[in-house]
Amino acid sequence: MRCELETSPAVSIKSEVIYQEHLPAPAALPAECLLIYDERLPSLLNGAFSEWLARFPIRYAVPAGEPLKDLAAFPQHVERLVELSAPLAASRLWVVALGGGSVGDFAGFFASVFKRGVPFLQIPSTWLSAIDSAHGGKNALNVGGLKNQIGTFAFARRIYLCHALLRQQPAARAREAFGELAKIAILDGGPWVQAMTDAQLDGAELIWRFLGDAVAAKERIVSQDPFEQHGERHKLNLGHTLGHVLETVHKLPHGLAVAEGLRFAIHFSTTRGLLSEAERNRMLDWLGTRFGFLELRPQLERIPQSRFIKLLIQDKKRAAADSLRFVFVRGLGQVEVTPIHILELTSEAARQGYVLAA
Amino acid sequence: MRCELETSPAVSIKSEVIYQEHLPAPAALPAECLLIYDERLPSLLNGAFSEWLARFPIRYAVPAGEPLKDLAAFPQHVERLVELSAPLAASRLWVVALGGGSVGDFAGFFASVFKRGVPFLQIPSTWLSAIDSAHGGKNALNVGGLKNQIGTFAFARRIYLCHALLRQQPAARAREAFGELAKIAILDGGPWVQAMTDAQLDGAELIWRFLGDAVAAKERIVSQDPFEQHGERHKLNLGHTLGHVLETVHKLPHGLAVAEGLRFAIHFSTTRGLLSEAERNRMLDWLGTRFGFLELRPQLERIPQSRFIKLLIQDKKRAAADSLRFVFVRGLGQVEVTPIHILELTSEAARQGYVLAA
Repeated sequence: MRCELETSPAVSIKSEVIYQEHLPAPAALPAECLLIYDERLPSLLNGAFSEWLARFPIRYAVPAGEPLKDLAAFPQHVERLVELSAPLAASRLWVVALGGGSVGDFAGFFASVFKRGVPFLQIPSTWLSAIDSAHGGKNALNVGGLKNQIGTFAFARRIYLCHALLRQQPAARAREAFGELAKIAILDGGPWVQAMTDAQLDGAELIWRFLGDAVAAKERIVSQDPFEQHGERHKLNLGHTLGHVLETVHKLPHGLAVAEGLRFAIHFSTTRGLLSEAERNRMLDWLGTRFGFLELRPQLERIPQSRFIKLLIQDKKRAAADSLRFVFVRGLGQVEVTPIHILELTSEAARQGYVLAA
Repeated sequence: MRCELETSPAVSIKSEVIYQEHLPAPAALPAECLLIYDERLPSLLNGAFSEWLARFPIRYAVPAGEPLKDLAAFPQHVERLVELSAPLAASRLWVVALGGGSVGDFAGFFASVFKRGVPFLQIPSTWLSAIDSAHGGKNALNVGGLKNQIGTFAFARRIYLCHALLRQQPAARAREAFGELAKIAILDGGPWVQAMTDAQLDGAELIWRFLGDAVAAKERIVSQDPFEQHGERHKLNLGHTLGHVLETVHKLPHGLAVAEGLRFAIHFSTTRGLLSEAERNRMLDWLGTRFGFLELRPQLERIPQSRFIKLLIQDKKRAAADSLRFVFVRGLGQVEVTPIHILELTSEAARQGYVLAA
């Protein structure tokens, strides 16, 4: 605690989260908004959405997806955004992002560095971003194919979670989002997890019903370590070490890659003697029955060892030159972050069949 | 004050400043350094410097100057820096910048966004950066010819001011740095200003003798408003409103542009009735006799009004759509920040002969 300090506008660590049925009325938003939105939304949504959009005179459509997060494309976007925002006073300008994870990462990073940081408001349009990426103040861009090398901690001042917007997504998106929902459920293990397990709901209905619980669970972890300095926040990387590799190599959707990463972490925890075989089987079974996650490994080509190691070396979770922090599972609500040698991780990934044995 | 918050590593607001004769021994620096340095230094300095440099296995030479601050060039630099730093653990890596203002801006911004922020250590090699830009935690990149549109607040953890390094510069660099020295002297007005006025020293000797006073004066202002939220910090823009325009249009060195901006602000203060003619003449005289600043205006082509207005509109100091915060001078140690209409500013610049009358 450094009580003598004031914090930058860019690092306030609390987001106001508002759950509502519809998009916020423009009058409920700040007067000077630079709206950055997923260019596909107008055709996916109805005419009312286009009318809503038209009420923002300063808006910028972006192609959502990983290429938007490429640092190489950032300067051209910024040139356009600087021109567009010229009529607005920097001191009163808010950046508003409407889209999924890539739009939130792009716009959140832009907001945090534009004129050294302007306030940021987020309206996630995908389940994945509504559950996970919109919360916790992290944004990032990719560098030369390496994920999330550049970024800031910059918490959205306000986040709108709008049911009508979110449920427009195809069912597959909800299934993918289950990856992050399952992750936060394992990390938290609170009473809501049992309620979710028992709920007679599925897909989008399941997520909307437990969205507030999942967001609150993430906030509890983030608030203990907002800038990832003390280790607590590393827990949120559960499933992401292998997940990011699978995302890069096999182009798996993020949520499915994380779900597979959860399976890997659960197996690895048993290998290391941290989780009994019975408990491991119970958790794998729960991933299958509650969320419909089956093992993807048999369909994935094994990754050459050298490539796997190279990708791990670029991982931000590295604890030292040759090790990284791995999140093991001891049970629901019980995880353990341990530095692990990259070679041990590689050998476990080979044992589980993700990596070609040397 | 938000005492419940912890601050990000990127926004600690205090730099440790170390004054010494020689460059720090590599053993005095963090174990894992990514050194970013001005590529001209090895040829400007002696063989001992090259030996010093060779002790940093991970180093990156950059071409100092405004093009280094171009956001368009940033992605290629970052790709190289990410590759270079692969052997280092992100959690222990420091970025060390050795160079002038542009190198500090570039490296400081990079450090603040690389892996969401790594610690930053700065060794200014120019008088301008030693007096001003290395202190106060601001960095910035330019966007499409517009200065400082993108940046962060990220205070260097440690700053070394090394006499032997700084005095290698040609005498002209010291004279240019007088622009920022005069500015901070006007803002502070403390006893050291009189001592500096009376000192039988000039050029580099004058700066080195009063460097600690100038740095402390800037720190006093910054500490009252580290993230430029309350106005106090705006005072540091004294001389910079016109200064930035002259830098952009006439390619004046920053320090000389600021010095000319000081003359403009002093005259404008008299126009507005804030400074008596006698006091104005005394201050202009002081700029001439103590620092050797003569009026540059007669040698500068007048700027077309439309271009002048366009450059002001892009100024980050804008208070609202059509006004910006201007720093007026009431006397030594007494300034006043007032929102001023862009057209009034333009008409004053025309009256003083910097802008073509419409």
